[in-house]
Amino acid sequence: MTVVGVDVGGTNILAALVGTGSEVVGRAKATTPGGGPEEVLDVVCELVGEVAEEPAAVGVGIPGPVTDGVVRFAPNLVGWAEPVPAGQILSERLGVPVVVDNDATVGAVGEWVAGAGAGASFLLGVWLGTGVGGGLVLGGRAYRGAFGGAGELGHVVILKGGALCGCGRRGCVEAYAGRASMERMVETAIGAGEHTALHEIMAERGKGRLTAGVWARALAAEDPLATRIIDEAVQALGVGVASVINLLDLDTVVVGGGLAEKLGQPLVDRIADAARPYLLVADAERRFIVAALGDDAGVVGAAALARDLVRH
Amino acid sequence: MTVVGVDVGGTNILAALVGTGSEVVGRAKATTPGGGPEEVLDVVCELVGEVAEEPAAVGVGIPGPVTDGVVRFAPNLVGWAEPVPAGQILSERLGVPVVVDNDATVGAVGEWVAGAGAGASFLLGVWLGTGVGGGLVLGGRAYRGAFGGAGELGHVVILKGGALCGCGRRGCVEAYAGRASMERMVETAIGAGEHTALHEIMAERGKGRLTAGVWARALAAEDPLATRIIDEAVQALGVGVASVINLLDLDTVVVGGGLAEKLGQPLVDRIADAARPYLLVADAERRFIVAALGDDAGVVGAAALARDLVRH
Repeated sequence: MTVVGVDVGGTNILAALVGTGSEVVGRAKATTPGGGPEEVLDVVCELVGEVAEEPAAVGVGIPGPVTDGVVRFAPNLVGWAEPVPAGQILSERLGVPVVVDNDATVGAVGEWVAGAGAGASFLLGVWLGTGVGGGLVLGGRAYRGAFGGAGELGHVVILKGGALCGCGRRGCVEAYAGRASMERMVETAIGAGEHTALHEIMAERGKGRLTAGVWARALAAEDPLATRIIDEAVQALGVGVASVINLLDLDTVVVGGGLAEKLGQPLVDRIADAARPYLLVADAERRFIVAALGDDAGVVGAAALARDLVRH
Repeated sequence: MTVVGVDVGGTNILAALVGTGSEVVGRAKATTPGGGPEEVLDVVCELVGEVAEEPAAVGVGIPGPVTDGVVRFAPNLVGWAEPVPAGQILSERLGVPVVVDNDATVGAVGEWVAGAGAGASFLLGVWLGTGVGGGLVLGGRAYRGAFGGAGELGHVVILKGGALCGCGRRGCVEAYAGRASMERMVETAIGAGEHTALHEIMAERGKGRLTAGVWARALAAEDPLATRIIDEAVQALGVGVASVINLLDLDTVVVGGGLAEKLGQPLVDRIADAARPYLLVADAERRFIVAALGDDAGVVGAAALARDLVRH
């Protein structure tokens, strides 16, 4: 049975033909258009057509809360401020069953079915990017919540009244561990006269922003500012993840996204070490693992949800 | 079909015969013995016998993490430091199917099937007592987590490095909103020379500790210390509940326990007001409600789980 997984991001849309063993057999990619939902869904249909002639089902991850195939809004996509019945539209246009779900949830499903979280039943996927995303698999099923907005680890508050977050609130995990927040901290520190090698490394590497690679080099060079900011990010992630474990009693935490891919399992071990003192019950069976699928987590997870759709 | 619900607490054990409409038909109560698991389970069997001759099934709530009927430990019960296969023991002794579950989870199930949370699908039960307990119903099912320890709202961290909690960690919700923590704050303030009417009210009412009624009277008298401590508790609960909602996208929060019963819906409205600024998506459909079943939440929830056991 042929299924296609699609991952719609703020920058790119990735589609993949995914085999029964969750292996990516073929892929297609396009830039995310900025003209609103119709344009985005056009590109999704084109990409699906490129990777499979007659898929049995299609799964799509979208960066926003999704309820029953309706994307309530998607802040990182242009023109998606109002609900879009993406599942229904795509199903009619493609002529096959389509499941649409939140991208962070879909990524967690991907790591769970075929990545670092294989064998888990209660899993949190942590995605380190511009912000901090989270996806949950609870009791062996993708968890969406009452209104499709579950998984917002980035907006678990770890320090009431703390650092300003991009969401306008204070003390969220993302205010310390999101790339945008970390870049703001660097600007503030430089503005206050602090020296850092971060911008030099950025210029040397020909990068226009503080990529995960730039952070990794600054850490390797023991740049004090980079070291401090990453330490704070690790602490914030540890406390936030510990709160989630105390609440949900998870067996597995998978950490992915740019910085996790670059710094690997040692970063995840540091997050686990930061979480441990806050855990009410320290279970030896609990695993903290770096994500294994990279950018494919989304398409693999979306394909798995599509497969579920036609199997049941 | 006759089912019995049992709620094992640190002080009392309550058993109730519960009808098909979740109404309590008969009840029996005893002091919790301090001689270890065997004594406690003896009393449970006696109380079940008092309320029903031949129940079809029995449900039991125990204050500790429970996996498949095994109580891993129960810090508020004497001699329950090691795992106790309570479900199996009780099932053999009573000769009927027995389900054993965590008491806070069982209470949340009670409020969900027959109390303030009726009609909910994604519910958090918040229990204000010596500590702050939490129970979850997710997707219309009691949620237990990977190792039976889920629901610990009291140990969601809202202020990294903040007030010392009874668990030995810092900044937990319970460090601000648990009765024991609040009593410690009163002692500290009095030690620092602050005046409060709390102890006078306690003496006047002939109480040996700061009961919910004492707090309520001190608030009504606009005692500054009591007002400040309750304000901080409300803020901590608001932030903690908001973190949980951002993570789990709940439709319903039910708040119960001594202080909630005494101060009622106005207290819950204050917690909701404290949570709202921290919510990533403010859903109009979300409800914050004071618990309706009082001390019966546990036995009603345990009976509902027992009924599920023999129905499926």
